[in-house]
Amino acid sequence: MPAPVTDADLALAGELAQQLRVDSIRSSTSAGSGHPTSSMSAADLMAVLVSRHLRYDWEEPKHTGNDHLIFSKGHASPLLYSIYKAVGVVSDEELMTGYRRFGSRLEGHPTPVLPWVDVATGSLGQGLPDGVGVALAGKYLEESPYRVWVLCGDSEMAEGSIWEALDKASHYKLSNLIAIVDINRLGQRGPTELSWDLDTYAARAAAFGARVFAIDGHDVAAIDAALAQAGDLAGDKPSVIVARTLKGRGFSEVEDREGWHGKPLPEAMAERAVVELGGERHLLVRGPGPAGAGKPRPGSDGAEVKLPGYERGQKVATRKAYGDALAALGVRRDVVAMDGEVSNSTFADEFAAAYPERYFEMFIAEQQLVAAAVGMAACGYRPFASTFAAFLTRAYDFIRMAAISRASIRLAGSHCGVEIGADGPSQMALEDLAMLRAVHGSTVLYPSDATSAAALTAAMADLDGISYLRTTRGAYPVLYDTGDTFPIGGSKVLRSSGTDQVTLIGAGITLHESLAAADQLAADGITARVIDLYSVKPADTATLTAAAAATGGRLVITEDHHPEGGLGSAVLDALTQAGRTEISIAHLAVREMPGSGTPAELLHASGIDAPHIADAARRLLA
Amino acid sequence: MPAPVTDADLALAGELAQQLRVDSIRSSTSAGSGHPTSSMSAADLMAVLVSRHLRYDWEEPKHTGNDHLIFSKGHASPLLYSIYKAVGVVSDEELMTGYRRFGSRLEGHPTPVLPWVDVATGSLGQGLPDGVGVALAGKYLEESPYRVWVLCGDSEMAEGSIWEALDKASHYKLSNLIAIVDINRLGQRGPTELSWDLDTYAARAAAFGARVFAIDGHDVAAIDAALAQAGDLAGDKPSVIVARTLKGRGFSEVEDREGWHGKPLPEAMAERAVVELGGERHLLVRGPGPAGAGKPRPGSDGAEVKLPGYERGQKVATRKAYGDALAALGVRRDVVAMDGEVSNSTFADEFAAAYPERYFEMFIAEQQLVAAAVGMAACGYRPFASTFAAFLTRAYDFIRMAAISRASIRLAGSHCGVEIGADGPSQMALEDLAMLRAVHGSTVLYPSDATSAAALTAAMADLDGISYLRTTRGAYPVLYDTGDTFPIGGSKVLRSSGTDQVTLIGAGITLHESLAAADQLAADGITARVIDLYSVKPADTATLTAAAAATGGRLVITEDHHPEGGLGSAVLDALTQAGRTEISIAHLAVREMPGSGTPAELLHASGIDAPHIADAARRLLA
Repeated sequence: MPAPVTDADLALAGELAQQLRVDSIRSSTSAGSGHPTSSMSAADLMAVLVSRHLRYDWEEPKHTGNDHLIFSKGHASPLLYSIYKAVGVVSDEELMTGYRRFGSRLEGHPTPVLPWVDVATGSLGQGLPDGVGVALAGKYLEESPYRVWVLCGDSEMAEGSIWEALDKASHYKLSNLIAIVDINRLGQRGPTELSWDLDTYAARAAAFGARVFAIDGHDVAAIDAALAQAGDLAGDKPSVIVARTLKGRGFSEVEDREGWHGKPLPEAMAERAVVELGGERHLLVRGPGPAGAGKPRPGSDGAEVKLPGYERGQKVATRKAYGDALAALGVRRDVVAMDGEVSNSTFADEFAAAYPERYFEMFIAEQQLVAAAVGMAACGYRPFASTFAAFLTRAYDFIRMAAISRASIRLAGSHCGVEIGADGPSQMALEDLAMLRAVHGSTVLYPSDATSAAALTAAMADLDGISYLRTTRGAYPVLYDTGDTFPIGGSKVLRSSGTDQVTLIGAGITLHESLAAADQLAADGITARVIDLYSVKPADTATLTAAAAATGGRLVITEDHHPEGGLGSAVLDALTQAGRTEISIAHLAVREMPGSGTPAELLHASGIDAPHIADAARRLLA
Repeated sequence: MPAPVTDADLALAGELAQQLRVDSIRSSTSAGSGHPTSSMSAADLMAVLVSRHLRYDWEEPKHTGNDHLIFSKGHASPLLYSIYKAVGVVSDEELMTGYRRFGSRLEGHPTPVLPWVDVATGSLGQGLPDGVGVALAGKYLEESPYRVWVLCGDSEMAEGSIWEALDKASHYKLSNLIAIVDINRLGQRGPTELSWDLDTYAARAAAFGARVFAIDGHDVAAIDAALAQAGDLAGDKPSVIVARTLKGRGFSEVEDREGWHGKPLPEAMAERAVVELGGERHLLVRGPGPAGAGKPRPGSDGAEVKLPGYERGQKVATRKAYGDALAALGVRRDVVAMDGEVSNSTFADEFAAAYPERYFEMFIAEQQLVAAAVGMAACGYRPFASTFAAFLTRAYDFIRMAAISRASIRLAGSHCGVEIGADGPSQMALEDLAMLRAVHGSTVLYPSDATSAAALTAAMADLDGISYLRTTRGAYPVLYDTGDTFPIGGSKVLRSSGTDQVTLIGAGITLHESLAAADQLAADGITARVIDLYSVKPADTATLTAAAAATGGRLVITEDHHPEGGLGSAVLDALTQAGRTEISIAHLAVREMPGSGTPAELLHASGIDAPHIADAARRLLA
């Protein structure tokens, strides 16, 4: 527990709060944009937190005992950066000349280019789920006494992801997680749904398993008491502080008024505001240091990963190989895994069985699934998160934001494409390659056999950024020998001769169909080159270009995916990047809405099976 | 209220429930896949509903007074289809030979290829949000006495979207919405998070504003009483029935046992199950008919839409033109609009001001935003849903499922790309074109000026499927005259001559940059063709092919989007579809992670402004 609070403490916190308000106004007015009023409502809450409760070594942001402070309401960045000034890690000059400027680290919404920021926020409803990930790491992996304080806005409480987060926080007994909800009643375009109905907020949070503290968010003594209790790691519940506040608090011309969201005060108005708030201050205030340290953040420990081996020709599903390889990777203490309640389908259950202490069941909550991975990545772990590939679409905003968070997370999506058969289109991932390729800095992998799937899973452990492995439901023959290598950005040429007339490109099930098509073509005396494009992003430009040159530019690209943004686009992007291109493309993809059926029926109906590939090749040669 | 229940009614419901169980087993065993045990747990609930409470004219599925029945737990399709048999609209033969078979309408998860299905389900947590959309239409648009009954699974209560739905249902006082939660304790891979903790489920639902009924889901009298009360349209709250059930109820070998999710019973076991359940039955049971009718589902009423006009050269943001046009479309009674609490940014607020009775504020809950549109589309309305384009990523799973629902919905995403400036990457849509292009049957539009934006908005009203309009934050010069036409699948050639050496292709801000680049090139004596590719999907193959042919295959494609899956891919797909292609492509896109800055700084830093475009053109000509 913190030291008993004195009147001087509270007075200092009050002064600090005014400074944070003044600096929020000054910085946003100087930038010509930003959200001062959304900062001012939470200034008292943050002033008490930072001066009295946040245990943080500001000289050592990576200290394993540091509390974490996440602004889920990322638009209150002026407040966050004003805190950084108040604790002395950002100068007043940087604040005034950097905020929202080109090239500055003080971006419009916080990102981890700042060493004190764990995760990027600004898409509402993400900071708390990310905080659950950090808190899971703190409690179960690092075993650190740190707390995770998350400042939420009231508008974002309408996001379902907030409730996924609280649900998991209570399920995992995260007493180290404290959500502070700044209930200032006003959203962007007008009043929020619940206004100042603190009772309803409190009832919801309590029903989701939190300890709840309802307070006046401008009463520093009440704030202090709530933070002291909420920050107590004893017990087994997360805490939610619902704080009634006024948007624009402290400046009479904007306080609690509509029409001031996301608007800097004009200069003259800002001057009046600073006067009304008592003038500029340059207090330097720091709170307590870490209460202890967590376990050292693990490296790979040089552990030797023994990947599973498969016999050529043996039928093994790539999703099974993912599970096998993930379990093998478990010898590395930095590898953690989580799944969306389908681990017996994705085969993440193999890791869960072998390393239960590093496996986190996220149930059917894909947004929280990805957010948990992001939070753990922020703590130095190497998370693998899996579900059906189709359901990763549920978390696209989180995946996009993970890239902005510079998080290194690994996603595995099973049951891609029409190949899954009878379950029908709701379970078929047909957009996932497009979705993941478009993520900044992503790596997209799509193995066709168990050997490559296992090797690529292992490679993902050491990749930076967002990496994605697309796996297939059915079991198909192993194509490669144990020990074959599959560099990221590479490909495998499975059939080639000096007289190839056409190139067939596939991945996953369509590689097997392309191989069968090559056999059919060979029977007609047509020699086809066959390329396994297991690395969809980055794609193997050299091999693709060489193949195009060798086969008269004739390429049949086949994918179990909609035509847009997937394998076809990857090939075209690669070829056209290489310079002047002369090509004849047949692009076979899933162009009609599929229904149920057997895999063979659906591959045929979609026009992506071997006979269609062979026909397309013949037409290119006609 | 329904007639008082008699012992005979309850006995009939009990018999019907056994029939539904037997048929769920028979159909899934015959198909060799499916979810019989998830169907058996809810059989009593559905038997009482269908025989006593569901007001439905089975001969007229489009009756405006029909209740709606949505299986949010879409994997219980054997139960749903067994109901269709019991009411006499699907034969036993179709059930036994069609379920999950190729070409059959009885797909693995329900889709609206069946006339009694409103929306596709199978991605969990979507049926209830969709049901909110239907209930909104019923209460506020159709003014029909129908109820919307949604069968939910317990596993899907972990999805945040469920809580977005209940939040909106209570906000909009949807007493016509009843969620029936089948709490059978077992998920796919093991026990659910909350097991049979009905108290917690009930507390959560109550906190989110629902009337809650906690019952034994196998006690037909208790079910009847709860359905009778919950179905009462009086009051202003949605209802949630939390029903304790047993997975696999009625067959001792699987009842309440793990390991039986999503598995059909082997034939011998199925035979034993049918015996234990009392044998096959072929009851024909229907409940009451509609209690009245709703307003006729509106057409466009031949209303003349007077689109706003803009002066060439006037600076108008395309998002503003969207709002103007949307408000103009309001003369059509079939047009409805909704927004994610940013209507003053998307300019949907113009429609809200003019037609408040057809505007629905969804606050910051993008999943529910799209689901509301899908539900209203199922009722014959033409919804437009808007938010920042970046935040549509939050709803990708819903958009994907909307396509499977054959829903015609219109999405408008504002603030695309780095052009937005200081707010930083969290608010920049840089993946949206890839995301929307990959949706089956989608139309993707990206206007560069107000005239075309308004015209395309109007065109969207009559488009089938998922259509998407990408709008830009800043105001740029109007390029076209009022009355110019912008057919879907078309483009505009803004500069051309008989001696064009290179083609510059852009849309939105990059079209303006391309025009400026053409001017710079002209100063060097280089003539450039400039194409406004406002229709990204479908793209104008003829114009693109002709331009490539006329300019030696030299194309500079510039987009304010990540390089994958957007404008560049649209152009390459169009050109390569047209046959043998010889091209030299410069593809300018956002390849580095942006930060804050002015629009000009960020366009320049991303390499997508006029000087970069002109340089790229010069390099192609070098």
